[in-house]
Amino acid sequence: MRIGVDIMGGDNFPESPVEGAIRALASLGEQVELVLIGDQSVIISELERQGASPEAFSIVHTPEYITMSDSPTRAVAAKRNSSINLGIGMVKAGTLDGFISPGNTGAMLVASVMGLGNVPGVERPTIGVLVRNMKGGYSLLCDVGANVDCRADHLVQFALLCNIYMKEVVGIENPTVALLNIGEEPSKGNQAAISAHGKLKERTDLNFIGNLEGRDFLPGHADIFICDGFTGNIVLKFGESFYDVLASQFSGSQVAENFNFENYGGVPILGVNGISVIGHGISNGKAIENMIKTAYDAAKNHLPTKIKAAFANFSA
Amino acid sequence: MRIGVDIMGGDNFPESPVEGAIRALASLGEQVELVLIGDQSVIISELERQGASPEAFSIVHTPEYITMSDSPTRAVAAKRNSSINLGIGMVKAGTLDGFISPGNTGAMLVASVMGLGNVPGVERPTIGVLVRNMKGGYSLLCDVGANVDCRADHLVQFALLCNIYMKEVVGIENPTVALLNIGEEPSKGNQAAISAHGKLKERTDLNFIGNLEGRDFLPGHADIFICDGFTGNIVLKFGESFYDVLASQFSGSQVAENFNFENYGGVPILGVNGISVIGHGISNGKAIENMIKTAYDAAKNHLPTKIKAAFANFSA
Repeated sequence: MRIGVDIMGGDNFPESPVEGAIRALASLGEQVELVLIGDQSVIISELERQGASPEAFSIVHTPEYITMSDSPTRAVAAKRNSSINLGIGMVKAGTLDGFISPGNTGAMLVASVMGLGNVPGVERPTIGVLVRNMKGGYSLLCDVGANVDCRADHLVQFALLCNIYMKEVVGIENPTVALLNIGEEPSKGNQAAISAHGKLKERTDLNFIGNLEGRDFLPGHADIFICDGFTGNIVLKFGESFYDVLASQFSGSQVAENFNFENYGGVPILGVNGISVIGHGISNGKAIENMIKTAYDAAKNHLPTKIKAAFANFSA
Repeated sequence: MRIGVDIMGGDNFPESPVEGAIRALASLGEQVELVLIGDQSVIISELERQGASPEAFSIVHTPEYITMSDSPTRAVAAKRNSSINLGIGMVKAGTLDGFISPGNTGAMLVASVMGLGNVPGVERPTIGVLVRNMKGGYSLLCDVGANVDCRADHLVQFALLCNIYMKEVVGIENPTVALLNIGEEPSKGNQAAISAHGKLKERTDLNFIGNLEGRDFLPGHADIFICDGFTGNIVLKFGESFYDVLASQFSGSQVAENFNFENYGGVPILGVNGISVIGHGISNGKAIENMIKTAYDAAKNHLPTKIKAAFANFSA
């Protein structure tokens, strides 16, 4: 299994991506070949600085990279040899089984969707986040910003994509799916939510448990919470800000750390032809390690193939 | 000044509304006459149980009330003598300067909009909440559920209504107004947000500081955060659930209490012809006291008159 790691992305490169690669190699061992993509001399000196042997990794050299402030569409088009473009290109060519980057989120999304293409039947690839819930498990919130204006059909597709991910990669049998809404009654919500509720209720391929509210997310009242990307992004960033409140008052507590999204890795973009994992810019070494493991698990469990099968006969 | 208090609403009636009335009378004193609306014998025995003299209050007797689970539109139409209908009717008739209820939110909204009517020029009356921010002040989040599908014009009207409220009633000079969005660039957001940004930017009667994100709310980076009621309701309830996390781990801490919305009162429905304050069902005595003070301040500062003046020549 070959997983590519963007060393030139995120707020703390090359340090955090290199640390994450070293950690992932230690935990995954021989099962995986890690391909570090970026400036070769930077990568080698950072590996040595962190006490790792460059021989343990493959390196794909490129001096070009997309910055956090680059305009996504423009940068992906202009910087053909950027680490993100090379990584996605290798996934498309089949020379990587997956690629991860904590870099420019928009650029990763554009490169993945343009470079890999949608799985047939998927209208809108989507991104979610796994957040630790009060049961000690994880709930998946999706979409968190890839799709801001959504129709009911899109919400239904997000639910199907998340369902496959939680079942096949996270390993939750028959995950519960809720529509994030402003009340439990089917008549509650905006037009897209009301219509999506009706469609979700009819599906026999989802364990849809109905509408849940904002207060149900942290307690983990469902495994999957579906919403449009405008709402999801605002909820996610609001949740992140809890950490600042907690860290300033209860520094080091486990509860505070549960809200520390620096510890979390990203999840794959769901619905594209290949495995591409986007992480937070602030991802630390542990988060990068988690992203690499996520890409590995997604590849091992043939995520794109399973999505393809599920969407071969999609109708909303 | 006469303020009506619905004694038959909320999760803990008559206890919490009566406690709030007693507290408000103690703090506002002779400036205000409190009119308690509900079952007279229940009110008198609860006042005596809490050690207060029934003579200190006016009582409007009605045995009928709207329950928390009643269907709003149906209950408002059917229960003509419910405490909510009587209270709103007295505001309309001018025999009350304001009315507060922690009861059925939907019923209060329907009764207020139907009973009092919109201020001319206001398309959609709106509801916000004041939340303690990390600066020690309050930020107003609006709309929080009254209007789930919003056009840009509606968001602009919410901003104007909130601006008047924060300036005239809360007493913040030149309050800062932000559009709650998924990025700071004007091009970010769903269609309504992108269009609203353009309209808000052009207004000379608002101190619009641009888009802010979910993470900017708790730090108080603006006095007013505008969004559609679908997003706002989910954010609000998500924030409320944070209290449960904190209370279970850091019981009694001031930080936890800042998220305890049981302590908060509601704010008036903005844009109707009169003062009607909706509170949480879980409102405790302190929250009810705050709601009564809010109604008092809104009446003292002629909130509906000022809204009327601002909307007399409204164009978006």
